[in-house]
Amino acid sequence: MANKIWKSYPQLGEKLDLTTDYIHQAVKINNLDISSMIIDLTSGGKMLRPAFFLLFSDFGENKKTTAELIPLAASLEILHVATLIHDDVIDDSPLRRSQPTIHTKYGRRNAIYAGDYLFTLYFELISRNLADNNDILRNALSMKKILIGELDQMLINFNVKATTDMYLTEISGKTAELFSLSATMGAIVSGGNQELTERCKGIGHDIGMAFQIIDDILDFSNSVQTGKPVHEDLKNGVYSLPYILGLEAGNKQLIEVLSKDKLSADDDLKATNIVVDEGYLNQAKDIAQGYTKRALTEIDKLPKNTSQRVLKAVVKKLINRIK
Amino acid sequence: MANKIWKSYPQLGEKLDLTTDYIHQAVKINNLDISSMIIDLTSGGKMLRPAFFLLFSDFGENKKTTAELIPLAASLEILHVATLIHDDVIDDSPLRRSQPTIHTKYGRRNAIYAGDYLFTLYFELISRNLADNNDILRNALSMKKILIGELDQMLINFNVKATTDMYLTEISGKTAELFSLSATMGAIVSGGNQELTERCKGIGHDIGMAFQIIDDILDFSNSVQTGKPVHEDLKNGVYSLPYILGLEAGNKQLIEVLSKDKLSADDDLKATNIVVDEGYLNQAKDIAQGYTKRALTEIDKLPKNTSQRVLKAVVKKLINRIK
Repeated sequence: MANKIWKSYPQLGEKLDLTTDYIHQAVKINNLDISSMIIDLTSGGKMLRPAFFLLFSDFGENKKTTAELIPLAASLEILHVATLIHDDVIDDSPLRRSQPTIHTKYGRRNAIYAGDYLFTLYFELISRNLADNNDILRNALSMKKILIGELDQMLINFNVKATTDMYLTEISGKTAELFSLSATMGAIVSGGNQELTERCKGIGHDIGMAFQIIDDILDFSNSVQTGKPVHEDLKNGVYSLPYILGLEAGNKQLIEVLSKDKLSADDDLKATNIVVDEGYLNQAKDIAQGYTKRALTEIDKLPKNTSQRVLKAVVKKLINRIK
Repeated sequence: MANKIWKSYPQLGEKLDLTTDYIHQAVKINNLDISSMIIDLTSGGKMLRPAFFLLFSDFGENKKTTAELIPLAASLEILHVATLIHDDVIDDSPLRRSQPTIHTKYGRRNAIYAGDYLFTLYFELISRNLADNNDILRNALSMKKILIGELDQMLINFNVKATTDMYLTEISGKTAELFSLSATMGAIVSGGNQELTERCKGIGHDIGMAFQIIDDILDFSNSVQTGKPVHEDLKNGVYSLPYILGLEAGNKQLIEVLSKDKLSADDDLKATNIVVDEGYLNQAKDIAQGYTKRALTEIDKLPKNTSQRVLKAVVKKLINRIK
């Protein structure tokens, strides 16, 4: 059953259920333990990337049938889950969606190979369903930028001289790229012209940027809901936007705390208080709001139909999480 | 400069140098540390997979130019290096070709993403150069079997009831698949008919099987040359063929030693002696010899030309490493 966020959009929810079924049938490995963990990871999530893909595939001149769209919607979620599995190994995260991660239960070996397998499955679904469309293929490979983004991130970790620009470039390559890819693929498969495709690409990018900043902000205040330990990223030297805004503003106390070799729980609390009291958290919210506003303005220029209305409602829903 | 094993085959060596140059130009990441490590990993190796691809691309009716073949030869080495990087993270290997591994120098994070990046680059090179050839695309995806093979391997590790069949199935999915893919892709791009392609596929598979068994046997006797710690695999519960033959033969002493929770250096030595003295090592050599013989018989049936002669010589050279 589709995630509760789609309750008000039963038609979309139904397509997402079909996407989940498709993924479950596409995952074919003999190792039942691993395959059941992959199936769990692809069940009940928000499935934002397939959802945006499906919505954006409703604006072109040559719309596809649901049956044609499902494999591509599935491929985007599979790519997303592949990156989640590898990210969890990298961060040694014990939980994902409140469940033990694959590497925690079956070791790093199986988690790394499971991610590799899903990457391959992504390419398989793309190439089997769209090998004749060079535009799609070229765009599908834009996920390379996600990995280049991750490899560049080393420059930002544990760097108290990190700037907002560095942060935005990083999340642009990490989160926004996959949202942008979902939107672009939707526009292309629906036969959208250059102008429409570029617009959808931009909207997807802005939604992704807002989504990541919002997620970072939520991590700040709520660890229970996401199943992640509080401020784990901070201890690993991964600074989210509120901290970076403080560092960039030259806040001496914050620079002092974060320059320490090892952060204690007290240091963590201190950094948090600075970020809240000095308004850096609110500045981060304003930046997320900025991306959301631009996305909404551009969505208004899309052909007017149900998908356009749903798109607006969903984007508003995402930003309202931090209000 | 191509590896010294190609010294007697300057034409092939030259093409492999071009392949290396191509790889270095294809790897485009801003992180200079990681890109230089990738470049090191793709320099000076034996480049067996591109070499076999190039040789097998000389038997069909519609041969391609060197310029057309290089990107595909490069893609196969890139795929191989991607699996090496991830395997090294998984086994926590400190060295690869006597050099520190990526995760040892720059952490797991960068090693995992570097591998993911190279996987993506593999698909990019395949799809950009052969998107119009569905046969190639389908075969390119057969590398999925490599990952399924790895995910199934969990069944064999630390299992003193492992059988030769299980071992052969595992290396078939792991090593032989990529050799087989290299040979098959060569046959297809050269316009080989069904019969030729199937023959090349089988030869590639047999070469790969022999190669992995030979590699396992060499690991046994020589740790310095390969830069790997002695019998590291054994301690990780990964049994190579000589051990498995002993276990399968029901050798009580061997079963007793390998059933221990933690293997000491003495246990390692004891297991080694049993495997040598009881003839299991020689049995493993015979099995490698069997695959080599079958490969040579089939190579004899290929069109007679320089590539066919080089192929025979190289396959003989590989088996002679354990004589």
